[in-house]
Order: sequence, then structure tokens, then C-alpha cells
Amino acid sequence: MPSQSPVPEGARITVCEVGPRDGFQNVKPFIPTAKKIEIVNALFASGLRHMQVTSFVSPRAVPQLADAEEVLAGIDRPEGAHISALIANRRGAERAATAQVDSVHTVVSASETHNLKNVNRPIEQSLGEMEATFAVLFDAGIAIEGGIATAFGCPFEGEVPPEQVARIARRYQELGATSVGLGDTTGMATPLTVRAAIRAIREAAPGLEIHLHFHNTRGVGLACVQTGLSEGVTHYDASVGGLGGCPFAAGATGNICTEDLVYLLQESGYATGVDLDKLIAAAALTQETLGTTLPGQVLKSGPRLKRHDPELTVTAAG
Amino acid sequence: MPSQSPVPEGARITVCEVGPRDGFQNVKPFIPTAKKIEIVNALFASGLRHMQVTSFVSPRAVPQLADAEEVLAGIDRPEGAHISALIANRRGAERAATAQVDSVHTVVSASETHNLKNVNRPIEQSLGEMEATFAVLFDAGIAIEGGIATAFGCPFEGEVPPEQVARIARRYQELGATSVGLGDTTGMATPLTVRAAIRAIREAAPGLEIHLHFHNTRGVGLACVQTGLSEGVTHYDASVGGLGGCPFAAGATGNICTEDLVYLLQESGYATGVDLDKLIAAAALTQETLGTTLPGQVLKSGPRLKRHDPELTVTAAG
Repeated sequence: MPSQSPVPEGARITVCEVGPRDGFQNVKPFIPTAKKIEIVNALFASGLRHMQVTSFVSPRAVPQLADAEEVLAGIDRPEGAHISALIANRRGAERAATAQVDSVHTVVSASETHNLKNVNRPIEQSLGEMEATFAVLFDAGIAIEGGIATAFGCPFEGEVPPEQVARIARRYQELGATSVGLGDTTGMATPLTVRAAIRAIREAAPGLEIHLHFHNTRGVGLACVQTGLSEGVTHYDASVGGLGGCPFAAGATGNICTEDLVYLLQESGYATGVDLDKLIAAAALTQETLGTTLPGQVLKSGPRLKRHDPELTVTAAG
Repeated sequence: MPSQSPVPEGARITVCEVGPRDGFQNVKPFIPTAKKIEIVNALFASGLRHMQVTSFVSPRAVPQLADAEEVLAGIDRPEGAHISALIANRRGAERAATAQVDSVHTVVSASETHNLKNVNRPIEQSLGEMEATFAVLFDAGIAIEGGIATAFGCPFEGEVPPEQVARIARRYQELGATSVGLGDTTGMATPLTVRAAIRAIREAAPGLEIHLHFHNTRGVGLACVQTGLSEGVTHYDASVGGLGGCPFAAGATGNICTEDLVYLLQESGYATGVDLDKLIAAAALTQETLGTTLPGQVLKSGPRLKRHDPELTVTAAG
């Protein structure tokens, strides 16, 4: 089993904002395109440079993201910005090429049952169909992040063997993906499953970059980030304010929250390039736009060294 | 600087439930004594064995815990149970001795401003007064956990130097405490401040046991537990359902949640002695008794391998 050093303190960690895609996709009613653009620009203004901005999928399947082209045409693209979008097929690849994104995120589930329910075909068929899709992307010079949903467990099948995740990662590598994104679709990732998946992929597909996409459904999303760091992974997805629910548990949170992740990384000695105050402002804008209360904690509590009114009463400390 | 190995996988971790003390103390209206006893017994029935059950403080200061003696007389004390209570002075020590607790938790703040506001005297005076209090405890064979509030930062002063925390820990050790409990009073603990405090105490007070009491105010409570584990600490406080708010941030969570902590530990390969399903049941009972929604995530989402109805629709995975 290949060993891997922890990410050294001081290293740069990539925080990939997925709220405008993974968070917005389930929001109702439709968010005006101008508001989407305003939020994306506020997120870039905080110093974030990696973002899944939208999806090129059927507007019937995801009406909220029917304005993908308009959003991408309207946003700022600051220097160093790396813009990604989700695609589901060759048509999506063509749209992504026209819109000039830097990379795309594709999806296949590690669990056969989940893949059948999600895209109505077996895993092998999903992977087989990617060849034609990827050919379009290669021609356009677009990088590919091969997404693997239910990578840490399936809500229908239960445990997902790390060897199965590694086998799909290997196939992605053979097809030409430069990275895989391991999706914690229903919040089943744990330190032990994260470690096992990373190590299995490193063995099966050496050189393939690993991106981690955790949910906080059971409260351990940031703990799983720490496990990823201890295994040498430097790329994490997160959603502004923690936007994006868990489909199977009312009131449970979904994606880990970008501000909380950036806070953790900075307070652990890593570099993120993000101004936390500006990121909190972008989260507040998102919350105000959607008219909802987002689960992010730093958004509620403010920066760590915020001073409090000395007239406040202290009782029963501890 | 003394180095310390991480806690090895498979080791037993002590989870100390503080909800009945730290959680209940700020709840209104008064929880009937019989209900308190029912919750404490449900928590013990889950396999938890360490608990801060109540406080022996002035009923005028903390009316909710005015029934300390009745609660302690009414609860089950399963084999191996280790019962603790908070005390503030010699009178509290006498009440603790009469009620036959196994240990007490005392409090002093690491920040001068916070100590003045909390108990209206300087840190040195608080520590000086402990000698007479501790004499009562020694006579009764009661162990002492020396609590240090604002150990990772003060909401009025800002950063708290780890050397100051270590100096107080050393004083506690000289006074006869066998452990110190580092309190993350307003949720300012981070991986770097936790590591610094632990290492400073190990250097200043070798042999003194370190207990960690984190809040999840900024979302990183369980990440701080992982840092504690990586520094060799095996004792963590937590509150059922995450009960206990942060005094300075509306909507922010306070104590880390016991179920989420137990879930993290078990899913990281540590032994806790706790039956998670029974613990979730105790949290549900607490939530129902208080008529509120608690912040715990595992309470909302259920155990990791809960299977879902295959008729459920899956959309937009990832």
C-alpha cells in the first residue's frame, strides 16, 4: 500500500466553491441570473479561485441552472480563476466547450443501485459513454474531473468497497481524466472510509489527482478534511454557507461550508488565498438572496478574534 | 518541547457527558427533577460512564440546578460510573462530599478580564481560595478536575498565551488536581491553539492529565478533537444533542454534540463503550423533554448505514 505524507503546514490548499452549482441546483424558486452572477463575483472577490459555477444539463432536469450560458457569460473571471461546470453527456461537453470553462465535472456512482437510480444505466455503460464525451473535451482543451458519487457509502447498498472506487478511478484515468472527485453524496464519509478510498486509488491509479467533496450530514465533514490532509490531499470542495441539503434527512446539513473550511485551514496553518471577512460577506449575500438561514457556523459567529462588548454578562462559565 | 504520540487506533477514549450540567444550566423553564433523572439514566444506559451531572452552586445564580442533591440521590449509578459536579467554592465542596460524587470540576479563567467578569476576582485570588476548598475534597476522597475557562481565547482579551494556560495548569497540579479541563468557552479553539496549549501544559506540568472541552461555535469542534487525538489526549467532554448555546452568537451552537463525537470516534477506530443507537434515543428524549431542536447532526440523520427506501428518487447526484 503506497504511503503518503501529510500535507505540510504552510502548504497551499485548493478550496473549490461548489455552491453556485451543487447548492443552487435544488433551490426554488428560480434565482435571477443577475443575482447568481453577483454571488459568483462576490465569491471570487474573496480570493477563491476554483469554482463549479453551473451545470450543462437538461433544463427540464435542473430548471434552476437553465441559465448556465448566461451566468458564465456574465461573471468576472479574475486572473487565475479556474471555472468548472458539471456535465452529464456529450451535449453538455459541447456546451461547456462553447462557454469556455476550464474543466468539467462528470458523474458516475460507485454503487450500481445508485447509478441505476440516478442515470438509469449500469456503471459500465456510464463509463463507456464517456469516451465520446471526453473526445469533445480534449479537442477543446478542457480538463476533466471524474466525479464518483456515493464514494464512501450508498444509501441503498450500504458500504461501498474502496476497491470499487479505485477501479472506477483507474477507468477515469485511462479515459483521460486528470483528477477524480470523491463525492460523499449522502454524508457517509468517515475518517476510516476516507483513508481507505485514498489509499486504494493511489495504488490503482498512481499520479491521478484526488479531490474530496464531503457533506456534513453527520457532523464530521471537517474531520474528514483533516483525514484527507493527513493523507496528503490538497483539494477540497465546499459550498458557501453550507448550502445544499441532504436528500434523505430533513434538517440535516449537506455540503461542508466554505467559510468553516477556510477558517479551519487557516487556523491549522495552511494557505488558502482567501480573505475570510470577504467570504463571510459573500455568504451573507447568499443567505439574504435566498431568504433562508444557512447552516454555516462562522457566518453566525463571526471571526475568531471578534471582540465582545465588555458590558456583556458572563454567567456559569465553562 | 515534549513530544507525544497520537492515540493509537483501537484505544479507549473517555467521553464525558456534560449536558445535564453545562447544557441544562441555561435552560428555562425549570426541568422537573424526575425528567432530569430520566435523561441522566438514559445517558448512562447508552454505555456512557463519565458525566457532569449537576452543579453545587448558589440556586440564585443557577436556579435550574437548585435540585442538585435530589438529582444525585435519584439517579442510577451503574458499575463503573464516574459522577462529577461543578463547584465554585468550599461550600460546594462540602455539598459534593455529602452527595458522594467521584470528582468535581472547578473553574478559573485563563483570561484576567474573563475571570473578573465571571467571579469578580483576579485569577490569583481564585486559585488562592482553592486551597481550603480542595482540603475538603481530599478528606472526602474526591478527585479534582481543574477547569480552565477561555483556555483557547477570550472574547474580551483575544488571544490567550499557551504559557498562561500552562502556568494555571501547573498551579492546579501543585494544589492537588489530577487533571485539568481546558474550556473552549466561546468557541475559539483551533487546531493550532489546541496543540500549543497541550504541549505547553505537558512541559510545565508533566503527569497532569489533560481533558478537552470544545465548543462547535465556528464548526471546528470535532476537528479540534482530532487534533487532541493526534497529540495523545484521551478524554473529551461533550453535551447530548449539542445542548448548550454560545453566549455571544445567536443561533450558534455551543458544546460539541455527544452523539456526533461518539460517531466520529467509533468511525475512526476508537473504542467508546457506547451504544450509538441508545445514545441517539437519549438525545431524542432530551430534545422532546426540552421541546426544542438540538443542533446534533447524527440525531437528525441517523446511523451511517441506515438503509433508505429504494423508491426514493435520486436527482442531481454529487
